[in-house]
Amino acid sequence: MEIQLDRHSQTTLFEQIYTRMLDRMYQGEWPPGTKLPSQRKLAEQLGVNRSTIIDVLDELKAEGWLESKTGSGTYVAHNSWQTLFPRQYHWKERIRAGIHQPNLQTIQLINEYETKEIIRLGTGELSPSLLPTKQLEEVLQSISLDPRTIGYSEPKGHKALRHAVAVHLQKRGIQTSPDCILIVSGALQALQLISLGLLPQHSTIYYEAPSYIESLHLFQSAGMRLSRLRSGAENITYSKSQKHGLFYTIPTLNNPSGTILTEAERHDLYQHWTNLQIPIVEDDVYNELAFSAIPPAIKSVDTAGNVLYLGSLSKTVSPGLRIGWVVAPEPVVDRLADIKMQFDYGASSFSQLLAATWLASPHHETHMQQLRENLQQRATFTEALLAKHFHNIAVWQKPKGGFYIWLRFHQPLVTKALFLKLLQKGVLLHPGYLYDRDNHHHLRLSFAYASLPELEKGIDLLAQAVKAMTT
Amino acid sequence: MEIQLDRHSQTTLFEQIYTRMLDRMYQGEWPPGTKLPSQRKLAEQLGVNRSTIIDVLDELKAEGWLESKTGSGTYVAHNSWQTLFPRQYHWKERIRAGIHQPNLQTIQLINEYETKEIIRLGTGELSPSLLPTKQLEEVLQSISLDPRTIGYSEPKGHKALRHAVAVHLQKRGIQTSPDCILIVSGALQALQLISLGLLPQHSTIYYEAPSYIESLHLFQSAGMRLSRLRSGAENITYSKSQKHGLFYTIPTLNNPSGTILTEAERHDLYQHWTNLQIPIVEDDVYNELAFSAIPPAIKSVDTAGNVLYLGSLSKTVSPGLRIGWVVAPEPVVDRLADIKMQFDYGASSFSQLLAATWLASPHHETHMQQLRENLQQRATFTEALLAKHFHNIAVWQKPKGGFYIWLRFHQPLVTKALFLKLLQKGVLLHPGYLYDRDNHHHLRLSFAYASLPELEKGIDLLAQAVKAMTT
Repeated sequence: MEIQLDRHSQTTLFEQIYTRMLDRMYQGEWPPGTKLPSQRKLAEQLGVNRSTIIDVLDELKAEGWLESKTGSGTYVAHNSWQTLFPRQYHWKERIRAGIHQPNLQTIQLINEYETKEIIRLGTGELSPSLLPTKQLEEVLQSISLDPRTIGYSEPKGHKALRHAVAVHLQKRGIQTSPDCILIVSGALQALQLISLGLLPQHSTIYYEAPSYIESLHLFQSAGMRLSRLRSGAENITYSKSQKHGLFYTIPTLNNPSGTILTEAERHDLYQHWTNLQIPIVEDDVYNELAFSAIPPAIKSVDTAGNVLYLGSLSKTVSPGLRIGWVVAPEPVVDRLADIKMQFDYGASSFSQLLAATWLASPHHETHMQQLRENLQQRATFTEALLAKHFHNIAVWQKPKGGFYIWLRFHQPLVTKALFLKLLQKGVLLHPGYLYDRDNHHHLRLSFAYASLPELEKGIDLLAQAVKAMTT
Repeated sequence: MEIQLDRHSQTTLFEQIYTRMLDRMYQGEWPPGTKLPSQRKLAEQLGVNRSTIIDVLDELKAEGWLESKTGSGTYVAHNSWQTLFPRQYHWKERIRAGIHQPNLQTIQLINEYETKEIIRLGTGELSPSLLPTKQLEEVLQSISLDPRTIGYSEPKGHKALRHAVAVHLQKRGIQTSPDCILIVSGALQALQLISLGLLPQHSTIYYEAPSYIESLHLFQSAGMRLSRLRSGAENITYSKSQKHGLFYTIPTLNNPSGTILTEAERHDLYQHWTNLQIPIVEDDVYNELAFSAIPPAIKSVDTAGNVLYLGSLSKTVSPGLRIGWVVAPEPVVDRLADIKMQFDYGASSFSQLLAATWLASPHHETHMQQLRENLQQRATFTEALLAKHFHNIAVWQKPKGGFYIWLRFHQPLVTKALFLKLLQKGVLLHPGYLYDRDNHHHLRLSFAYASLPELEKGIDLLAQAVKAMTT
């Protein structure tokens, strides 16, 4: 809620807030059933005393505009509305009826709080201080625009960028041509396109927990079933009814566990799923963040065209670019490109131009080298904090790269209550149950986002809360 | 198909092409069932004689790699493949089974040919020469990046851009706050989000033909039914079973007809649908292109929160920006933002930054004024050509702005055959049946894209083809 308050006005703050709230309801911006922010939050957002907010809300309640529901908050009332206005549309009911499932509430809260001043202990992105801002600015300012490049993009994406990505992928052992590459607005969009473009309803998405994919709703919203494999790919019993599906994996620096599969494990996985004729989605967005050498991508041995490979610049260069890519057989890429055209007519040309120029410049390699060193230092620093606070109540693996430590408490104390408690203290957590439901032992810690003092303070607050729960 | 041929190599062109095609099949880039481009196209793309292509294809056919289907083209064969390779995945079948419908074939062809050298007589975008390339470059180079703005965006979009859009919308009579604005990757994405976020399956989308919405598949893919109203909103018989749905309209400079609704018509429309409690999607992406004053947006009188308003910079500043917006009641915007986060984590930060800076600068107004003058000149020029060639076989309305003339031939000659015939002659048409199925009288002509000489030549070629059909 944003209101420009005029503190030098003849009109009192009460009247200014009252009028603006009434406007919102009158203009249909707050239809009946809308939940208002809490009093505390409103006071904070508007920079006024909480008592002023209480006065305004009481007045609006007295007039029948708002109603309180015990323990749940303040809502725009239904009754007064309908008599006053032509026919307010009942959005609330409509929203509930929509096809796409909402994000999990914990994730909605995370999305909301990630834009606020808070210590983010689990965030899966680079700290602003680790982004190559100056270098990107330099590249940006060197770009001269061609009228043709700022029109709609080709369905598969700008050719110069697809060329640059093809060259870039050689480092992963992948030989491909620009025709087999689709530029997407981040790897997440690739999953969306795959779910709507390549799979019939009631397909099964196989994966090994813990996995990033459990925190997403997109496959379920498209009518797919998630099926987690408890102990590796071997134990899947394949039946005719499961003919359609795919296997999702992050073989390098898994989100959230940080695991890196060996070359032999990759080979087995490839053989297993290819024999079952079930395609593999290889999510490889963290590969450039490994602290030492890693095996080639599964895609590099894919002679059967069975692997859909996903990459991105979001984890390494800038999430705001919204540039990722899919590598797949040409007819698959054509199909996904056709759907992307129906979704959003292609990725931003400016982002594509910037990404192509960036990848073709020496900036990228220099930046990556520096970034890996920085991440390594942050990992070491964070491990020292964990050793100090949690050495006898939790375990973890030494990070091999990327952003995450998959911290395991001996006791199942990572609950929504812990999440909310830390939120109150100004610390945002990513509980393990987002990636492995019913798991209350794990936390996904990120050493990539918070500053070092924030890491120190956040982990200290976490330790205090955990201590209070265990003693 | 891109192949780097080395003309100074010891290896013949035949061998180079042969090996590269084999590689494609072997690496799974061309799985069984893939249709190859035509011989003519391959020869053109690779810059070799057609006879070389024929030799290579014959060789690969003889070896069982490829197979011809009479009248349909050359395909990667199924048989040889399966014996040679582990287990090629049958993508073709999978693609057919996918949930999302493919684009209409005419539209796929349009998307494909729009990236090629061809006279585009129907394209719904500004000619590269009309884009404010230099001014955008200037703004781009003036931008200094802040590490925080190049991270992931807030769910609703960058605050500075939402502020700029709120100010911008005052010109349309719309008073709203940044909280009720969602930044999307073009207005098309807004429709996608609405279809998946606000409507249950089997909802009905009402519209009056001809309409841009008939050329889209996104609602049908989400299980919605399109229902066109023949003579205005009045004739809808409302029953309980049609409770969920929405009414889609482009009240200003309709795509494709160019119509502008009067203030009274807007008011009636608003009352009608609001009484039925069916929300209105007001697609207003062309409003700044009107040659003279237009009535305020329907949204400006929406006290009931019943209108979802769509705007965009694609038609006025740069399609490549991929920046549009939705204005709606706050809970609706929150819901759509949540789904957008699940789709692609928000629009490109660079595009958002550029758009915010652009809208806040005097460039926008200066550019729009110039652009309207240019479009007016192009409209006059095009009308003169129509008068010359078609005065006794077709009719049309004088354009009031935007891009289009909705040309109506007395005879129903606008068929797919005409479309393909003109394609052969190097002219890309947008047949009326894309926007009004079974209508073979109309063409959507665009005076905005082709250069003046192209318009002249294209319309001349069209006239010749039409003449051949009618005499």
